[in-house]
Amino acid sequence: MIQKELAADLQQRWKRLREAMQKTEAGGCLLSVDVNLYYTTGRIYNGYFYLPAEGEPWFFVKRPNGLSGPQVVYLRKPEQIPEFFAAQGLKMPEKLLLEADELSYNEYIRLQTLCKPKETGNATALLRSLRAIKTPWEIEQFRISARHHSATYAEIPACYRPGMTDLDFQYEIERRMRKNGSIGILRTFGTNMDIFQGSILAGDNAETPSPFDFALGGEGIGPFAPIGANGTLLKEGTAVMVDMAGNYTAYITDMTRTFAIGRLPDIAYRAHQVSLVIQQETERLARPGVPCADIYRQAVEIAGKEGLSPYFMGTKQQAGFVGHGIGIQLNELPVFSPRSADTLQPGMVFALEPKFVIPGVGAVGIENSFLTTENGVEKITRSEEEIINLK
Amino acid sequence: MIQKELAADLQQRWKRLREAMQKTEAGGCLLSVDVNLYYTTGRIYNGYFYLPAEGEPWFFVKRPNGLSGPQVVYLRKPEQIPEFFAAQGLKMPEKLLLEADELSYNEYIRLQTLCKPKETGNATALLRSLRAIKTPWEIEQFRISARHHSATYAEIPACYRPGMTDLDFQYEIERRMRKNGSIGILRTFGTNMDIFQGSILAGDNAETPSPFDFALGGEGIGPFAPIGANGTLLKEGTAVMVDMAGNYTAYITDMTRTFAIGRLPDIAYRAHQVSLVIQQETERLARPGVPCADIYRQAVEIAGKEGLSPYFMGTKQQAGFVGHGIGIQLNELPVFSPRSADTLQPGMVFALEPKFVIPGVGAVGIENSFLTTENGVEKITRSEEEIINLK
Repeated sequence: MIQKELAADLQQRWKRLREAMQKTEAGGCLLSVDVNLYYTTGRIYNGYFYLPAEGEPWFFVKRPNGLSGPQVVYLRKPEQIPEFFAAQGLKMPEKLLLEADELSYNEYIRLQTLCKPKETGNATALLRSLRAIKTPWEIEQFRISARHHSATYAEIPACYRPGMTDLDFQYEIERRMRKNGSIGILRTFGTNMDIFQGSILAGDNAETPSPFDFALGGEGIGPFAPIGANGTLLKEGTAVMVDMAGNYTAYITDMTRTFAIGRLPDIAYRAHQVSLVIQQETERLARPGVPCADIYRQAVEIAGKEGLSPYFMGTKQQAGFVGHGIGIQLNELPVFSPRSADTLQPGMVFALEPKFVIPGVGAVGIENSFLTTENGVEKITRSEEEIINLK
Repeated sequence: MIQKELAADLQQRWKRLREAMQKTEAGGCLLSVDVNLYYTTGRIYNGYFYLPAEGEPWFFVKRPNGLSGPQVVYLRKPEQIPEFFAAQGLKMPEKLLLEADELSYNEYIRLQTLCKPKETGNATALLRSLRAIKTPWEIEQFRISARHHSATYAEIPACYRPGMTDLDFQYEIERRMRKNGSIGILRTFGTNMDIFQGSILAGDNAETPSPFDFALGGEGIGPFAPIGANGTLLKEGTAVMVDMAGNYTAYITDMTRTFAIGRLPDIAYRAHQVSLVIQQETERLARPGVPCADIYRQAVEIAGKEGLSPYFMGTKQQAGFVGHGIGIQLNELPVFSPRSADTLQPGMVFALEPKFVIPGVGAVGIENSFLTTENGVEKITRSEEEIINLK
């Protein structure tokens, strides 16, 4: 069931999860959502993972057939879990954590009804806070993703042909992503956050508001996929922002670079430089103990001093954050927004994405992924940061 | 808010939804899940759609900025919905339908708490049953998808190069899909049904069980994406099953074709012919009023008579269905399984996928999408159905 190279790392995750449960007097958690199963067991399966605050975990598997190892139990339906506990002489916990922000209402009620805890708690909230602090194995996965991500970005200029639309350009980049090992699937937290392999924004499409809580918008390919490229012709004087996913392992790096078709108006280069200054000042400020809200405020201040507030993080609709945690999902904790209560801690991995939308030109700016170390932050995504002319 | 060409079709959907609510004495439904918003309003947005059993609907929009039209109301949070109702002198319904199989537990509880209905009902179940019967506009969307799907499948032989792995082959097909207009996103119902652009199965990887409830499995690219191609070399004597998505509009067609690297063992051709016979006999049997379980049973019987039961729908793990409804999601109603209570009705669109897994060779078989008409079924995905030799 458990892959050998992961065993020690999983023990560390279970230890932290157990300690957190003991603090809130939770007796155990029952998990079944793909990202939480992957985090706690190293694989996605159809079934449940039960971790008690004290004692051995149980892997309850419906599918696939053929998994084996200690503590693995096959079942057809969750109603067999309490029967199994009873047969083993084990007690179900009085306080049970369930994935309250991820399980459907009916699934949650079903588990609550069959487990009969006196009290339930929110496993989603707890796991999201634990998952924000990455383990050594997880950090290594980010480094692998970052390497492939950077390699793909180095190939972007070779994807351009004159007369292309943003979508044509995106298809070529997607192909390079896959050849470089992209797993395809790009996981996000929350409903209605459907994005395909990332986003390319060119020209005025960068101003189009989207329904989603991503940094920028774009009309997308239709009202059923309302984000990103919309078929805009890449013509002279257009800024082209490439924010394609770093999903080369289960751990997603996030990186944005800005390209130009020929020469852009001066304000675009100036705004881009301000993005780089915001990044630099963030690297100076960020270290364990620093409130994420302070990093947001510093970014807003710099944009304001430069007179670029109306363009910062969008125009017709402006994002209320300048960065976000990354991990198995694209949007993890912490959040870099004005009211964020999060504070940087060693092991947090996040994306910082100061961006400006310049009407008539497009989006400019930068995004990189950073690891929070003991005394600062380390940039893990690397490639040319100036605006690259594709012509 | 509403696109003109959709207005009449949406009225028809609302009428059916209202009639269904009146039958169960539900006063209204409050929807926010992307597929249900798309179905009822023609677009995905961040917010809520409220349709009362009698009276005008309301579009409550959080994002994107800039939507307009009658009955559009902007809000920041759902708690403003009852305030708005009170200000308008409108009553919240005593029985309210919420998306109980799709909303998270916490979202559901939040809406229930603020709307204070005396009774709640399951909007997911109702919408899934209504969405199973497609409207004229929806059927036209399937026809467009099917056309692009067929065109892409005609290009598949041109994607093959000797020495390729299943993944290399898939990347080339994915690229053609995108160039032919694939929207990328492939929506499924249920948690833990993460599939990228479809599945390619070659050789013994077709035997590998997957956690998911798709027809066949495959190891996938890693334990974080455990379905489909796994890097198998496409060598002489291998069957290659291509089941890549027909997501060329919001409505997904489903189509599988079998390819061969050179000559396969005779049993593979024989099993493939049995798949074609199952398809033919289904076309003969299927019409409004026929139980979907009968279609499943007929398929199982034909496979059994031919002595192919151990290979039907998998070997180490066998799927318990031979077809499924398709629509905005890949797995809609009806289901063609032994215990299905569904009965074919005019307007139902479904995929039929009789498949066999032959150890040492790979998967063979066929899948097409069918529209249920007044007196039978019409195949809407068309391309060569025999095994095509790629060499």
